Amino acid sequence: MTEQLTTKTCGPGLYEITAPVAAIVEATGLTEGVCTVFVRHTSASLTIQENADPSARRDLEEWLQRLVPENDALFTHTDEGPDDMPSHIKAALTSTCLTIPLIDGGLGLGSWQGIYLWEHRRAPKVRQVLVHVG
Amino acid sequence: MTEQLTTKTCGPGLYEITAPVAAIVEATGLTEGVCTVFVRHTSASLTIQENADPSARRDLEEWLQRLVPENDALFTHTDEGPDDMPSHIKAALTSTCLTIPLIDGGLGLGSWQGIYLWEHRRAPKVRQVLVHVG
Amino acid sequence: MTEQLTTKTCGPGLYEITAPVAAIVEATGLTEGVCTVFVRHTSASLTIQENADPSARRDLEEWLQRLVPENDALFTHTDEGPDDMPSHIKAALTSTCLTIPLIDGGLGLGSWQGIYLWEHRRAPKVRQVLVHVG
Repeated sequence: MTEQLTTKTCGPGLYEITAPVAAIVEATGLTEGVCTVFVRHTSASLTIQENADPSARRDLEEWLQRLVPENDALFTHTDEGPDDMPSHIKAALTSTCLTIPLIDGGLGLGSWQGIYLWEHRRAPKVRQVLVHVG
Repeated sequence: MTEQLTTKTCGPGLYEITAPVAAIVEATGLTEGVCTVFVRHTSASLTIQENADPSARRDLEEWLQRLVPENDALFTHTDEGPDDMPSHIKAALTSTCLTIPLIDGGLGLGSWQGIYLWEHRRAPKVRQVLVHVG
Repeated sequence: MTEQLTTKTCGPGLYEITAPVAAIVEATGLTEGVCTVFVRHTSASLTIQENADPSARRDLEEWLQRLVPENDALFTHTDEGPDDMPSHIKAALTSTCLTIPLIDGGLGLGSWQGIYLWEHRRAPKVRQVLVHVG
């Protein structure tokens, strides 16, 4: 079964989507299988990260911003704005898809793991995420 | 169903494989499920990136070349040439496997997403990619 | 079928888990399908890398240590020790999950590919890895 989640973002950072993904898994009633999460964009990505202290996610965002700064003289792909090419690079360095085995009828995440949509663009966006359970 | 694609490469860069992967998916006749793409090498990788403007892919390649230059004094694994160890690092930072849910009997890619084999070595290579649909 | 592997680690580096993952695959008797490997932590990750020369894995570890050093002035998430925030970043840059198609009743890995748990923390840890075959 495949469903599409829609997530509104307002600037760079990690947006948690664990609850809606878990709800899709639980609605299937499956106790065994794998959940696949897929973001349908090349300037946003996915990550599984610590869900406890928000400072870990802020540091992650800041560190990646510093690794891939805007206005790099190397960039020729600049027509879509200074934050576009860094977004593609950040997406390539992180994940477009995640696969999470089910255990006990739910996502087999560890205690401190959450699923995040990672927005890399500055303008507000509506992001589509496919969730397959099977 | 698992099939193997063979892709010839001639130096570093992104080689699009969306069409042959989509053809394997469509040949199965499945309308629901997930397509798994897996590269059987450690000096090439996979990525899903913008399929419109080629400048985005060139910048991506240039940026990664600069992040992971050859002849780094840190490298001890140099027997297979100066581009071998950077290739392993680039593969580790990108993806060896991708999982893409199907929708409407085809790959659930977003409008601007293409599937790419990312070659990291300079010499011509024949790369094997497994594609599973199920 | 989903099983959990437990791997003890003693400091940063790559710990091979190919054999126990392959044993789980072979025990299923399946000849077709996909094996999903998932690490249930945010300060350790997974990678598929060269299984021949150990120097490639040492260089990989050293390179990533240099890219993401401890005690970065940018870090605010420091309560869990100086190696915690770098571990989250390293996990985000590598992989939390892997999907490997089966061929001939076993993992469809290339000749030089091994599956590794990548420990990023200094203290000894017991790491849980889920392996699903289906």
